[in-house]
Amino acid sequence: MAAEKQGKKIYYLNIGQPDLETPAAYYAAVKNFDAATLAYAESPGMPVLIDAVRGYYQGLGVGLEPADVLITTGGSEALLLTCLSILDPYTEVIIPEPYYPNYTTFVHAAGGVIRALPTCPEEGYRYAKRERIESLITKNTRAILITNPGNPTGVVLNQEEMRMIADVAKKHDLFLICDEVYREFCYDDQFGVPTMAHFRDIDDNLVIIDSVSKRFSACGARVGCVVTRNKELQQALLKFCQSRLAVATIDQVGAAALYSVDHEFFRRSKAEYKARRDTVVRRLRDIPGVLVEEPMGAFYVMASLPVDDADKFQEWLLTAFDDRGETVMFAPGAPFYETPGKGVNEVRIAYVLEIPELERAMDLLGAAIVRYRKECMQRETG
Amino acid sequence: MAAEKQGKKIYYLNIGQPDLETPAAYYAAVKNFDAATLAYAESPGMPVLIDAVRGYYQGLGVGLEPADVLITTGGSEALLLTCLSILDPYTEVIIPEPYYPNYTTFVHAAGGVIRALPTCPEEGYRYAKRERIESLITKNTRAILITNPGNPTGVVLNQEEMRMIADVAKKHDLFLICDEVYREFCYDDQFGVPTMAHFRDIDDNLVIIDSVSKRFSACGARVGCVVTRNKELQQALLKFCQSRLAVATIDQVGAAALYSVDHEFFRRSKAEYKARRDTVVRRLRDIPGVLVEEPMGAFYVMASLPVDDADKFQEWLLTAFDDRGETVMFAPGAPFYETPGKGVNEVRIAYVLEIPELERAMDLLGAAIVRYRKECMQRETG
Repeated sequence: MAAEKQGKKIYYLNIGQPDLETPAAYYAAVKNFDAATLAYAESPGMPVLIDAVRGYYQGLGVGLEPADVLITTGGSEALLLTCLSILDPYTEVIIPEPYYPNYTTFVHAAGGVIRALPTCPEEGYRYAKRERIESLITKNTRAILITNPGNPTGVVLNQEEMRMIADVAKKHDLFLICDEVYREFCYDDQFGVPTMAHFRDIDDNLVIIDSVSKRFSACGARVGCVVTRNKELQQALLKFCQSRLAVATIDQVGAAALYSVDHEFFRRSKAEYKARRDTVVRRLRDIPGVLVEEPMGAFYVMASLPVDDADKFQEWLLTAFDDRGETVMFAPGAPFYETPGKGVNEVRIAYVLEIPELERAMDLLGAAIVRYRKECMQRETG
Repeated sequence: MAAEKQGKKIYYLNIGQPDLETPAAYYAAVKNFDAATLAYAESPGMPVLIDAVRGYYQGLGVGLEPADVLITTGGSEALLLTCLSILDPYTEVIIPEPYYPNYTTFVHAAGGVIRALPTCPEEGYRYAKRERIESLITKNTRAILITNPGNPTGVVLNQEEMRMIADVAKKHDLFLICDEVYREFCYDDQFGVPTMAHFRDIDDNLVIIDSVSKRFSACGARVGCVVTRNKELQQALLKFCQSRLAVATIDQVGAAALYSVDHEFFRRSKAEYKARRDTVVRRLRDIPGVLVEEPMGAFYVMASLPVDDADKFQEWLLTAFDDRGETVMFAPGAPFYETPGKGVNEVRIAYVLEIPELERAMDLLGAAIVRYRKECMQRETG
């Protein structure tokens, strides 16, 4: 990137790529793999990995049959195949905004339409409002898609909210697609390790999107899964799984090994991200004009900045700003919204750097906001 | 499977899973990979692999820019993303039948419709007939999709036929999607290593589907690519590549190493498959009533059998037949056809076993046909 070519150091807080070490179990399993021919794995996933996933869910108190788990190439393929399986052209999916922008590509690939459920920074982006959700349901609605814990907001649903959303899906006979890839990252004990899979009365509605990427700091493995007890959907998904033959063999072997790491790994990861969250939120609150609610999960925080346009501000940070040769990069907010004009002065900050680096990045943000506003004011009055 | 549970040995000639050893270079590269964090690779593919692919094409006399190659999760994802990028609901793709059945899933996922270009066993399944192709073109046609060398037929186009199809695509402004994953498996020197990429006047039409799966006996790596010089299509594909973030990191590292194997590997693979083809075709010709043309490439042969229904015959082979506890399995022909009723007495035989096993499998087929016809006749007259 141009800023780096100018010799600037950039603190990257724009992508959700965890920096923690991948457990050694992954590499050990991969190195031990020694089949003479690297053959196609089974289309629904390798039994060793399906069993590992089932064992993990059993640990959460959720019993699953082998057929309830379909291994996919990351949570991304899990979402794409789910959309292709349940959506027809012009059918609708309700998604709280701001949301992960790639949802748009997956829904549109299947010909679907997104109905955005609005939230606002002042309410901490909380979306579990029954009337607001139900007001969006039409005869074309097929699904509600939520991310819990949330990306980009870090919002975590409490039990009552989860139950309410499950009730709405059941009452209106909708799929409830629950992207739970950040499940292990909840920073308040009240939430435990949240999953909708406990609600057995929505077995036919529920589709869980899962992945090893964030959970085990193993994004490059591209191993995820769809978990559903809906038999008809299982068949539709299986058809797509068969059409693309298999998920990479060695990565499935490695992913199965990841599920053998002990609970201490999750505890350490969570403690580290919680300390980072505390740092970022404390520092953001110290910057005049910044609006931020403490996120309860994932490793993102959405903040409203006292700037006219976060995209312009980001461009300026890269091209016109530095402090001792350093600058910082966020994800501008607007792409996380379906509704035009929303999120313009918001950013998503991924706290995927170590604390001293986060401290420095927040110094830079604070200094940059002051300088940017000054320059804007000078332009207006000059 | 039930037949195996009964203790039967089955000769599997039904799937295109090569049995040759994967080159050691793959495993060596994978074992050497030691990044502390297994991070997302670049969305269009890792530069090391893109360069390896470009180097391979350079060896064929085809120069490619880095942007002309997009790495995918196998040839399957290459096809799915291509269909999602170029097809709208109700647009049409012309495909010679019989064809790889998963094409149907990919085309339908994008809302497209398949127009089958008919062939017949009597003509050796050859499809390069200009009038027949042009008669299928309508205002909704977006693409011609061919597999060269062909799966399931083993048909290889000669230079004149390739040029004619390129001309048709150019004249009618259609995409020409050329699945060339079997490119290295041509058993007649006249074909060399065929690729449409030599025709530079169809740069805007041509989309090549490629993969390491068959070429390097590495199906489980799930590494393929789309090769196209059409800039607009590159952008559409890139959007999908970004939405699913990346292809598995370690497999890309391994696949890049595969491209370093020397030419001797291709020569040995080809010699082995050629000897197998010769065995299977010779033995098939010795079975009365079997119609077969010698396939020129890939590792499949399509044969017409003197039975009423290949699907019923296959079922009978598994449940009611054995010779000294052994039986054989093919892929029945009908699923390779779009047109209902076609291929009913045909089978696809994948010659992916060693010669002594192929000989035994052909013994079994010959004996089974005699016994099956006798039983059918007895039922009819009894």
